[in-house]
Amino acid sequence: MIEYKNDFIWKADADITQAMENAFKKIVEEKENGVSGYFTLGSDSLPVMEDACSYAAANPYVKETDTIVVIGIGGSSLGTKAIDSIFKYQNKNVKKMIFLENPDEIDLSEKLSKIERDKTLFVVVSKSGSTIETISIFKEIIFKFSLDYADADKDHIMVITDRGSVLDQFAGAYGIKAYHIPANVGGRFSVLSAVGVVPLSIAGYDVKSILEGASATAERFFAQKENHIVKKAAFFTQYRESASINVLFSYATCLEDFTKWYVQLWGESLGKINACENHTGLTPIGHIGSVDQHSFLQLIMQGPRDKTVTFIKVYDFEKEMKVPDITLKFIEKTDYINGYSFNELIDGECEATKESIIKQGINVDSITLDSLSEKNIGSLIIYYELLTSLCGIMLHINTYDQPGVELGKEILQKKF
Amino acid sequence: MIEYKNDFIWKADADITQAMENAFKKIVEEKENGVSGYFTLGSDSLPVMEDACSYAAANPYVKETDTIVVIGIGGSSLGTKAIDSIFKYQNKNVKKMIFLENPDEIDLSEKLSKIERDKTLFVVVSKSGSTIETISIFKEIIFKFSLDYADADKDHIMVITDRGSVLDQFAGAYGIKAYHIPANVGGRFSVLSAVGVVPLSIAGYDVKSILEGASATAERFFAQKENHIVKKAAFFTQYRESASINVLFSYATCLEDFTKWYVQLWGESLGKINACENHTGLTPIGHIGSVDQHSFLQLIMQGPRDKTVTFIKVYDFEKEMKVPDITLKFIEKTDYINGYSFNELIDGECEATKESIIKQGINVDSITLDSLSEKNIGSLIIYYELLTSLCGIMLHINTYDQPGVELGKEILQKKF
Repeated sequence: MIEYKNDFIWKADADITQAMENAFKKIVEEKENGVSGYFTLGSDSLPVMEDACSYAAANPYVKETDTIVVIGIGGSSLGTKAIDSIFKYQNKNVKKMIFLENPDEIDLSEKLSKIERDKTLFVVVSKSGSTIETISIFKEIIFKFSLDYADADKDHIMVITDRGSVLDQFAGAYGIKAYHIPANVGGRFSVLSAVGVVPLSIAGYDVKSILEGASATAERFFAQKENHIVKKAAFFTQYRESASINVLFSYATCLEDFTKWYVQLWGESLGKINACENHTGLTPIGHIGSVDQHSFLQLIMQGPRDKTVTFIKVYDFEKEMKVPDITLKFIEKTDYINGYSFNELIDGECEATKESIIKQGINVDSITLDSLSEKNIGSLIIYYELLTSLCGIMLHINTYDQPGVELGKEILQKKF
Repeated sequence: MIEYKNDFIWKADADITQAMENAFKKIVEEKENGVSGYFTLGSDSLPVMEDACSYAAANPYVKETDTIVVIGIGGSSLGTKAIDSIFKYQNKNVKKMIFLENPDEIDLSEKLSKIERDKTLFVVVSKSGSTIETISIFKEIIFKFSLDYADADKDHIMVITDRGSVLDQFAGAYGIKAYHIPANVGGRFSVLSAVGVVPLSIAGYDVKSILEGASATAERFFAQKENHIVKKAAFFTQYRESASINVLFSYATCLEDFTKWYVQLWGESLGKINACENHTGLTPIGHIGSVDQHSFLQLIMQGPRDKTVTFIKVYDFEKEMKVPDITLKFIEKTDYINGYSFNELIDGECEATKESIIKQGINVDSITLDSLSEKNIGSLIIYYELLTSLCGIMLHINTYDQPGVELGKEILQKKF
């Protein structure tokens, strides 16, 4: 169960109500016309998941591995990593996942030094199939581990890419196992496609529940039972001139990579030149509570009034590690928290911070998960994707492209 | 060596030139009047470092530990963690550092499960001495490891706090080793005080070089040999209405925690209500290249023109892990990078991204380190602290307080 609540100080007038109705119609069209394919991944990816599980069970090499190394960057790794980070400490029986993203020598050497060649499945993820960072790191893997990808070691490798991409052709030429990303699913919307589903399933996560959570929420949304998402998009886009920054404040350390996924989704989808040739968009910032109360909160409270704040918290009554009932001489004033659970402390921090921000007249909304369950996380993923699409519609932009990053790629190639 | 360069599109008029001169005079006054004590920590902390090293060498328990657990949050941990993250993979002989920051059950349990009681020094860091998250986690440590802090296990513990704080009194009552933070050094400016110097020295890092780097840069600055810092502060504050966000794009994975330190320093110092009762400040965002080129770059390129971008890169010619000269069938178009080092690839990414952003007319500046040396990092820390003070002076605010976070603390206490 996820509860969504907002304390927005506004009222939708007739124009905005009309804009919300239009946006809903438009997103239905996007789904029906396949403008993006992410809407139905909750069900479309079930057979992909089943195939990955069967493959992992049937292939003697893959079955025996204890580590999955994902070689990918941006949309090819962020979502998968977010899910791994959320569940890895709760699922002690899953395979270890290592993400090779940045072509940074110190980071790369350190991670490579921890990899055991013959206990590892290397999963190369690239939608285009020729992402320079990813393919360069893949070459280093082949070199360092003397991988005979054409023959003896082909089971050590798997690729996830667009059908027909150069990486797909490479895999096809040597009989390397390949999974495909639907052509109309962009990187940052792809976590519930093969991109996330395949490595997470092979690692042993309950991907089925994640997909079911996503599916159920998408169905409820298209049956107009989640209209709060449309309202939130209307509010964010309507007030973007005065509040162009959205701070996502997650009160759980394991959600840090989820906030990075959100930053990519939001920033890359909504930062665009619109139909009228204006630069538009909403700037996403991710923070973790209560740590960043000791960092970013002062700026929210007293800095420029250009921010909205979204709180995510997990109110899990089953968590019961308690602050011990210990009194330390001279520090008795901290005893008011003794006997309460750490979960209650962090929940109190979240609520107190929220109240103090609301008192400044800053617009705030809350997302409360009753547990860090797979269903809730699947639901939260599709919630943010739908919210992003709706904001894009209301901003009159193409949510699904990223023309602004091409120039850098062209310049890079000329440098070598 | 650090090279600072900017491509700001502006020219300081007579008023701005005057404001820069005034700001320099004011920061000299701040130093001379002890408004903040961070300016001279490069030299002031040398005896603290020496004492910590002597203590660690002389105390049989501390000498034999292999892990330092820092219990602290915000300014009590961010800077220390940033330095540990930068150097830990380059210094294989240092003690392992674990940071207990967030009172989050999943995160805390996981970290506690990795701690060996009798090989660990627990360092409790809190300026006020009664930070609720820190003291609650400290109680959990006492409980879980049955620490007899009053007697047999007092060597397992150390505190770093303000002289006379409740935590200091607690330590004094039981003969627990305590180090003190200068009263006029706030949390976010405290990394070069006992807060960072003591645990990092005991861990075995070359803290002396970090302090020397900081000292040398501070001296050069006050001798007016680093006037580019004043100019940058003038530019950032002058253009804050049109560019209120500064994105720090660091091209090295190990600088991720450094960007978090910067976010606290910048956000908490500059997000203030000014003398005219206006909300002011500059919003800091940290990103890592090349990873976040695949995430946030699109927003910078095509989104609202409200950002400046600072690039940090490390151009270290000694790094020589090369992209192997391997041609993968069908993916030949990535071969242009074969034979170049990964450091050259990431440097090329940084330069290409910078050029593409400059072409949009966005203001950009660059900080280039010739290596990730201790001296350079000490210098970079004081650079950012001086820049922050100068921005605060030009914004007519108190850079060193944080009144906005008190309300949340009051509300929290009433909840229990």
